[in-house]
Amino acid sequence: MRPVAVIGIGQTKVDEHWDKSLRDLAGDAMLAAMEDAGMPDIQAVYVGNMMSGSANHQQHLGAYIADWVGLRYAEAFRVEAACSSAAVSFRTAVMAVASGEVDSAIAVAAEKMSDSPTAEITAQLATAADSDWELDQGVSFVALNALLMRRYMFEYGWHHEDFANFSINAHANGAHNPYARFQEPISASTYLKAPMVCDPINLMDASPMGDGAAALIVVPLERAPIIPGRPVIRVLGSGAATDTLSLHNRPEGLWLTAAEKSAKQAYSIAGLTPSDIDLFEVHDAFTIMAALSLEACGFAERGQGVRLALDNQITPIGKVPIATRGGLKARGHPVGATGLYQLVEVVQQLRCEAGDTQVPDARIGMAQNIGGSGSNIVIHILGAE
Amino acid sequence: MRPVAVIGIGQTKVDEHWDKSLRDLAGDAMLAAMEDAGMPDIQAVYVGNMMSGSANHQQHLGAYIADWVGLRYAEAFRVEAACSSAAVSFRTAVMAVASGEVDSAIAVAAEKMSDSPTAEITAQLATAADSDWELDQGVSFVALNALLMRRYMFEYGWHHEDFANFSINAHANGAHNPYARFQEPISASTYLKAPMVCDPINLMDASPMGDGAAALIVVPLERAPIIPGRPVIRVLGSGAATDTLSLHNRPEGLWLTAAEKSAKQAYSIAGLTPSDIDLFEVHDAFTIMAALSLEACGFAERGQGVRLALDNQITPIGKVPIATRGGLKARGHPVGATGLYQLVEVVQQLRCEAGDTQVPDARIGMAQNIGGSGSNIVIHILGAE
Repeated sequence: MRPVAVIGIGQTKVDEHWDKSLRDLAGDAMLAAMEDAGMPDIQAVYVGNMMSGSANHQQHLGAYIADWVGLRYAEAFRVEAACSSAAVSFRTAVMAVASGEVDSAIAVAAEKMSDSPTAEITAQLATAADSDWELDQGVSFVALNALLMRRYMFEYGWHHEDFANFSINAHANGAHNPYARFQEPISASTYLKAPMVCDPINLMDASPMGDGAAALIVVPLERAPIIPGRPVIRVLGSGAATDTLSLHNRPEGLWLTAAEKSAKQAYSIAGLTPSDIDLFEVHDAFTIMAALSLEACGFAERGQGVRLALDNQITPIGKVPIATRGGLKARGHPVGATGLYQLVEVVQQLRCEAGDTQVPDARIGMAQNIGGSGSNIVIHILGAE
Repeated sequence: MRPVAVIGIGQTKVDEHWDKSLRDLAGDAMLAAMEDAGMPDIQAVYVGNMMSGSANHQQHLGAYIADWVGLRYAEAFRVEAACSSAAVSFRTAVMAVASGEVDSAIAVAAEKMSDSPTAEITAQLATAADSDWELDQGVSFVALNALLMRRYMFEYGWHHEDFANFSINAHANGAHNPYARFQEPISASTYLKAPMVCDPINLMDASPMGDGAAALIVVPLERAPIIPGRPVIRVLGSGAATDTLSLHNRPEGLWLTAAEKSAKQAYSIAGLTPSDIDLFEVHDAFTIMAALSLEACGFAERGQGVRLALDNQITPIGKVPIATRGGLKARGHPVGATGLYQLVEVVQQLRCEAGDTQVPDARIGMAQNIGGSGSNIVIHILGAE
C-alpha cells in the first residue's frame, strides 16, 4: 500500500445557503481545495452525501459535480453511510490512491438541508436508523440518542449539567472559526436553561443541521509538493467498522464497538496509541456521543468520558483537545458533509493555521465520523512531517 | 497494485419480490456468493444501490445489510452513481483489495423498486439526469434516450426495425436464464408491434425495472483457492469515467465519450484490444444505448453499432456476443443492482456455467455499466486463468 498525503483543503461556511445550490456549494469547496493544492486537474472525485436524492431531487452527484469544476471525464461517484458519508469519501479516495488505480483524488462532501421543510428532513435523517426495527416504532434520531444519554446517566451516576463543557468548549472554539455556523460563545447558564428537545437532550446537547461542503485532495506521498513553511500532511492510519443498525441488538448499548474497532485499526496501521494524538475531532452530534466516543477510542475509562469535559481537558490546551474549530455543535452538522469538515480542521491544526484555537505543537490529529447511532464509524489519523 | 480475483458469485431472480425486503434480497445474494466462495467471513461490504432512501425509506445500507448476513463489525458503506451504482461497488471492492487496506471484500448491489408507485419510481429515476438543466424541462429518462435514438436514425439513416435484433437476442438468451425477469423468446413481429413508450422507443426497446440483488466476492489473486474444474477468475482491467450530466452540454451527442475513455483505460491496464473480448455484457437499458456502446467501446465504427445486430453478430456464437444471459432487456434492470448481474454473468461464462447460451471458449469477458445518459460509465474486464 503506497503512502498517501493530503495536499489541499477547502470548505464553505456552514449556514442556511438560500442563494446556493448543492452544486454551487460542492464546487466552491472543491475549487478552494484545488487552489490550495495548486492542482487544477484531478483524476477522481468521490462525493460524500446522505440525502440529495430526497432533499434535492438529485442523485448521481459524481457526474453532477465533476463537470461543474472543470473535471469533465474524471472518475466520479457518490458514497453514502448516513452522517458518516464524508469520512467514507475520504477513505475511498485514500484507498483509490493507495491502490495505484488513480494518482490524484478529491474527496468532496456536500449537503443542502435548508431547502426541505424540517419535518421532512427529520424523516430523512431517520432513514439512517433501522426502518424495520426502529422507525416502525416511531422513534426519531434524537430520541435514540436521548435513550442512550438517559441510560448513561443512570448507569454511571452523571447528571445533565456534567455534560455542559462539551457544548461550552465547542461554542468557545467555534467563535474563532469563520466557517462555523455559530460563532458566539455560550455560558453554563445558556446550557442549563436551553429548551428541552428530547429529555435529557436539550438544544445545547444537540448539533445544528445546515448546508455546507468541504473537500480534501490526496496524492501519493512521493508526489506531495514541498512548500516552505508548510508541513507535508500524511495519512497515517484509516479504520472503518460497522455495528448493528438498531440499538436494541447490541450486547452493550453504551459501548460503541465500531468506534473501538475502527480506532484500533487506525492506531495499529499508524503504530500509535491514544496518548500520541494531539487533537481529536470527535463526532459530537450529541454530547452523549462525544462522551461515548472518548471512551471507545481509548481516551477515557468506561463511563468516564464526561470526566474529561468536567476537568477541562477537552479545550485546545487540554489533554485531549476536541471540537477545536467548533465541532458538530458549533461549526454545524451538515450531515453527509461533516466528516470532511473534521478532516479539513485537522489539517488546519497540523499546518498551524488554526489561529486562536491552535493546539500547541500539534503534530498528529485524529478525526472520527459516525453514521447512525454508532452503526458506522470511520477514523482517520493524519500527521505533519 | 496487487492483482485481484473473483472467488464467489450470487444473485436472486429479477422479479417483483412482494414477499422480500431490500435486506432479504441483498442478504440472499450475499449468502449465495459466500457459499459459492466457501467464505463465511469477509472484511468489507460495498453496497451498490440507487434509490433506497426514497423508494424504501432506508439509507445507510452498509450497516443495514452487513449485520444481516453475519458480518457484524465489517467495514460497510453504500456507493451510488444512478444506474451504474453496482459496477461502482465492484470497482470500490477491487480498489480496496488492491490497496491492501482489506484482504477480502464483497460487492453487493440491490434495488427494490416494486414497493413504490410507478409514477414515483419514474420521478426517482429522473434524479439520475440533471435537475437544473433537464428535469426542469419536464423530460423523463426514457425521453432523453428517445431523443438520442431519433437523432441517431436521422444522422446514420437507420430505421426503427434495424434495432430489432438487440431485443430479440436478449430475450432469446434470457429464455435460458432462470434468474431473468422474462424467460420467453420474442419474434420480430413482437418487436415491430410493441406499444410505443416514447417515440421511437417502444416497449421492446426498453428494459424492465424490477427487484433484485447480486454479489461478488474479491480477494488478492494469490489467495484465490484452486478448485479442480473451475478456472481462477482474475480482474484484468477496470476503468471509470464521467461525462456531462446533461446531454445538451456534449460536443457530440451521439458519442459516448465516457464509454470510450473507461474502455480504453480498462483495455490499457489489461493489455487487450476489443478483438480479444470473447463476450461483452453491454448496458442495453435501451437498444440505442447498446448500439452507441458497441461503437464507443471499439466494436463497431461510428454509426454502425446497429450493423452488428443486423448481421447476427451479437448472439452467443457471433463475433461480439452481448446480453448473453438476457441483458438489461430480458434479465431485467433493477437499476442500482444491474452492474453486478452483468459481472456475475461474465463469471458464469468464464466458468462455462452458462448452459444453453454458453459462449464457446470464453476466456475474457467485459461488462459495461452506464449511469444516466452515458454520464458515468464503468468497465471491467475479467479473465479465466
